[in-house]
Amino acid sequence: MSDNTQTFWNPMVHPGDPTSRNRIEIVKGDGNYVQDGEGNWLVDGVGGLWNVNVGHNRTEVKQAITDQLDELEYFQIFDGLAHPKVHELSDLIIEMTKPEGMAKVMYSSGGSDAVETALKIARQYWKAVGQSQRYKFISLKQGYHGVHFGGASVNGNTVFRTNYEPMLPGCIHIDTPWLYRNPWNCEDPEELGQLCAKQLEAEILFQGPDTVAAFIAEPVQGAGGVIVPPANYWPLIREVCDKYGVLLIADEVVTGFGRSGSMFGVRGWGVAADIQCFAKGINSGYIPLGATVVNQRVAQGIETCENFSGAVMHGYTYSGHPVACASALASLKIVQDEDLPGNAGIQGADLLAKLQDALLDFPSVGELRGKGLMVAIDLVVDKNSREPIDPMSGFANQVAAVALREGVIVRPVGTKIILSPPLTIGTEEVDKIVAALKQGFTEIDK
Amino acid sequence: MSDNTQTFWNPMVHPGDPTSRNRIEIVKGDGNYVQDGEGNWLVDGVGGLWNVNVGHNRTEVKQAITDQLDELEYFQIFDGLAHPKVHELSDLIIEMTKPEGMAKVMYSSGGSDAVETALKIARQYWKAVGQSQRYKFISLKQGYHGVHFGGASVNGNTVFRTNYEPMLPGCIHIDTPWLYRNPWNCEDPEELGQLCAKQLEAEILFQGPDTVAAFIAEPVQGAGGVIVPPANYWPLIREVCDKYGVLLIADEVVTGFGRSGSMFGVRGWGVAADIQCFAKGINSGYIPLGATVVNQRVAQGIETCENFSGAVMHGYTYSGHPVACASALASLKIVQDEDLPGNAGIQGADLLAKLQDALLDFPSVGELRGKGLMVAIDLVVDKNSREPIDPMSGFANQVAAVALREGVIVRPVGTKIILSPPLTIGTEEVDKIVAALKQGFTEIDK
Repeated sequence: MSDNTQTFWNPMVHPGDPTSRNRIEIVKGDGNYVQDGEGNWLVDGVGGLWNVNVGHNRTEVKQAITDQLDELEYFQIFDGLAHPKVHELSDLIIEMTKPEGMAKVMYSSGGSDAVETALKIARQYWKAVGQSQRYKFISLKQGYHGVHFGGASVNGNTVFRTNYEPMLPGCIHIDTPWLYRNPWNCEDPEELGQLCAKQLEAEILFQGPDTVAAFIAEPVQGAGGVIVPPANYWPLIREVCDKYGVLLIADEVVTGFGRSGSMFGVRGWGVAADIQCFAKGINSGYIPLGATVVNQRVAQGIETCENFSGAVMHGYTYSGHPVACASALASLKIVQDEDLPGNAGIQGADLLAKLQDALLDFPSVGELRGKGLMVAIDLVVDKNSREPIDPMSGFANQVAAVALREGVIVRPVGTKIILSPPLTIGTEEVDKIVAALKQGFTEIDK
Repeated sequence: MSDNTQTFWNPMVHPGDPTSRNRIEIVKGDGNYVQDGEGNWLVDGVGGLWNVNVGHNRTEVKQAITDQLDELEYFQIFDGLAHPKVHELSDLIIEMTKPEGMAKVMYSSGGSDAVETALKIARQYWKAVGQSQRYKFISLKQGYHGVHFGGASVNGNTVFRTNYEPMLPGCIHIDTPWLYRNPWNCEDPEELGQLCAKQLEAEILFQGPDTVAAFIAEPVQGAGGVIVPPANYWPLIREVCDKYGVLLIADEVVTGFGRSGSMFGVRGWGVAADIQCFAKGINSGYIPLGATVVNQRVAQGIETCENFSGAVMHGYTYSGHPVACASALASLKIVQDEDLPGNAGIQGADLLAKLQDALLDFPSVGELRGKGLMVAIDLVVDKNSREPIDPMSGFANQVAAVALREGVIVRPVGTKIILSPPLTIGTEEVDKIVAALKQGFTEIDK
């Protein structure tokens, strides 16, 4: 099978499969567009990878990086060391998460790291407050929490575990509040929210509440296919967690800093988590950066612990990297100044409505769903049974290939096509995305 | 205990302990020096954190970053996408690791990621070749492999696991080839290498060879206290691994690209690993970057697998980040052009000899050991028994504080003081480090 002369492996593919590599090369970026190796400018319908929220090639962010390089490209923040930018960024993040009551930031270099940090802090919290038997994590089927061993263990899709088992002990998966496909065939959002919250409660009771450390979920599932929970879901989940003292971890790697139409995903549901995981939108991907924030409850539990259980034996060489922090400060200024969460809500609603109008009549388009600038096209073999297409059929790839030819990058993921453009897009880009996908389905979906 | 108004947590400390934060602020870097918030220029005796190998504020690296920002600050390499710099860097790394026979690179954003990638690939390899029962990892006591759940599970120091257990199943720890302290009280390097290799063989046999996926170790232990194995150790370990088919993973996060005096740690022992983990020296820390390279055996095993077990369901948003790759290309050019592995060998030998001369008579200095520009001062309460000082005594911190006052940053780690300056240092910096530490011991070690 293998004839692979390329010297690196792309993520999440079979490296022996020739179709998995060199599909296109991207050489330049500017605003909502990227340029391929042949000089074509393409609408960046994937926003890099859910992350280039302020758009490409932003002078302000580049300047902040260059300025920081001229000051201090790197120094550690171990051993009580620090530099000005890590203080400044931490103060800003705590200010921005004030409605959620967040207290302290721990830095890393991406979303997988931010999740691993959250899981470790959750276990440590319980040891610090004298309940070391609380070590289990409950998470959602279809959920995505990165690829380190902790995150992969709570991931809700077996493909992220199969090749790497056995995984971390104590990880339990329950059903996702997904209106389009759920085990109860429930079509009522309110009822579904209640069913799912009850399932969490039942699982906590089954495991024994005093063994459960945390529940972790994405406010809106991203990689799982943009699964938007019912309005009552998050408030009910918060209630269940509170009832049993279980920590609530919101994996905001995709939703954080505006993508779902509010500054944070949980804010869209009027709920606060105990721990939030950030990456991607925190600095629009210009430099690798992740952050995990904890609220006063978690911070106090650990900080006031008077023995070794309060020592956070966690952290990275690149925790609080000066250049990454500088890029985040510049990027978040744009997010705030240009109200990108607001624009994500407006453009996202427009994009979703126009896509529904253009695509819902195609036989393979089962559902179009979204929140803010997270949109998924759910592909089916039968609209009534909602049975998904064969992910190996290549259908999504073929539609994406036509869209690419029409000047738009979209992301085919098995049975779905996913859109996550920069939060700076306007009507022009929305219309180009819709037209390219319409052409794709017109040619492929016969 | 807690009065913590700082809005971030430093890594690896008790955040409730006021002495754990704001020790000093670093605001500027240049060459082998960094500047603190009060304007003092300090010799960077820790090289950032084992990583700023080409020194601070290097024009070539900064320019490469700025140039890349003007081209493409970020795009993903999922789904067979790519950009020119990821090809270029991968080709260079494979070229540089040709003596070790490496074939493919997988990218990440740091050392912990590189380890997690290695562990996952090792398990996947065995599933791909039809031996899925091989899932266990054997590693060394005192070893350090980062803080994700996989890496923390193979870490050889309980402090990295205690707060976060239960860890990954199947991780076994054996003794380190440490001449100064070992369970056999063996003082003969040759004999110690044999004893340790025999212990690995015995453990593989005890576990059952067909259950062991890989043995992972640092060529020279870094965080564990610069433990340099005997000359016969790595060749014997390679033999044992080969005898039982066990994969050999070299965690070269610290040693990779010159620090130990050869381009790669294992090269210093004339040995090749099956998987090498890189970060730190790969781009001198200017931008977070990690990489895991696999040899032809591992690459072929996975690439030629004709089912799902060949799909690498692993990778990061920031895998192959364009700006990180550009910084690595510029940094590695300096490493090669200036023969920094050679300089690390020369300056490291000079530093170690001068430190031995200056410090060995102090009552607390048990041993001074090193290889290349990795040096540790081992602190004892009694030179004969070699009993380590109480890590909570603050002794190492006090010596480091005097050194700081004298203009040199060193790293106190419990019972050791560790040095890992940029590989660009010369006699001037060596002498300053020696003088500052001599003053530190003169004042504190009475």
